[in-house]
Amino acid sequence: MAAYAKPVEILIDELGRLPGIGPKSAQRIAFHVLKTDKVDAQRLADALIAVKDKVSFCERCFNVAEGTECEICGDDRRDDTVLCVVEEPKDIAAMEKTGAFRGRYHVLLGNINPLEGIGPEQLKIRELALRVASEPIDEVILATNPNIEGETTAAFISSKILAPFEITVTRLASGLPVGGDLEYADELTLGRALEGRRSV
Amino acid sequence: MAAYAKPVEILIDELGRLPGIGPKSAQRIAFHVLKTDKVDAQRLADALIAVKDKVSFCERCFNVAEGTECEICGDDRRDDTVLCVVEEPKDIAAMEKTGAFRGRYHVLLGNINPLEGIGPEQLKIRELALRVASEPIDEVILATNPNIEGETTAAFISSKILAPFEITVTRLASGLPVGGDLEYADELTLGRALEGRRSV
Repeated sequence: MAAYAKPVEILIDELGRLPGIGPKSAQRIAFHVLKTDKVDAQRLADALIAVKDKVSFCERCFNVAEGTECEICGDDRRDDTVLCVVEEPKDIAAMEKTGAFRGRYHVLLGNINPLEGIGPEQLKIRELALRVASEPIDEVILATNPNIEGETTAAFISSKILAPFEITVTRLASGLPVGGDLEYADELTLGRALEGRRSV
Repeated sequence: MAAYAKPVEILIDELGRLPGIGPKSAQRIAFHVLKTDKVDAQRLADALIAVKDKVSFCERCFNVAEGTECEICGDDRRDDTVLCVVEEPKDIAAMEKTGAFRGRYHVLLGNINPLEGIGPEQLKIRELALRVASEPIDEVILATNPNIEGETTAAFISSKILAPFEITVTRLASGLPVGGDLEYADELTLGRALEGRRSV
């Protein structure tokens, strides 16, 4: 016989598909859900659906957005001449927390990763080139992660995409631990790295 | 401004309420949901609701059940004379995996934990007493966890609840895990293993 009632098995299964949730965590969460009020489970279910229904990617920078334009692209007070290129929308949140950047963003939605079959054409790199060609951008900060994939992506964009343009291309300063993730850097370190960015 | 679109913030919030999910994990899962197909998010949302709608606790043993009786209570081939008392439904799954137990179960739905304000009256202990009084039970195995709360709960049930009945009350053996190393066992476990040593 099954160890649990069928709907519990299904929930454990579905939870186990989420990143960072192993079988034991999935089981623990499923039993937590079983014990809590229906209204709590409903709120989580609603939140999941709302994200898929209401949130998409900004048509200009590919940050998450309600509607076609994200809050940052819709903000007139941002500096149009500096563009910060990041891998994921969550990296924007990390940058914004420093309070040290007032320019615009461009999200690649990933990095170049040949092992996973992700090349430049799967990323928003063509869209980046179009923006650099049409917007009054003076500087592009390549704020991809300081790991192999991030460095590869930055090197590719710098040499193959941005070389023809008369703009400054910079990379966040060292100070970030090599092999780490932008997302896990504390605000101070990230702020310093931004301050000390250098021309590549 | 908010770091993310509102629905994303709400989802991160709701995910963060789950046990073992910190703010970083919640963020990671939320962005995973954002990137995956709507149908995947819908399946998880459905599974959450299905568990609350279709699954409740068995009226007899408090295992999880679809309907009023769990699969084990509904199984005629189980031995009615041995009752295994566990803290949570997931402990039943662990016991069943051994294939070594053919009796019935009773789930307490927790343990006595004064620090969290959980006393005997919050657990299914009264229901246990009623079962022992009315069912043909010869032996009660107190299979609560071998930690402070579990030991306290077992001691309470044994001395305050089961003492008046003419039944055998047992506790699972403490000792070295099979396949483990003597060297890595903690002193308490090794002490218990020594205490409970058996003739070969």
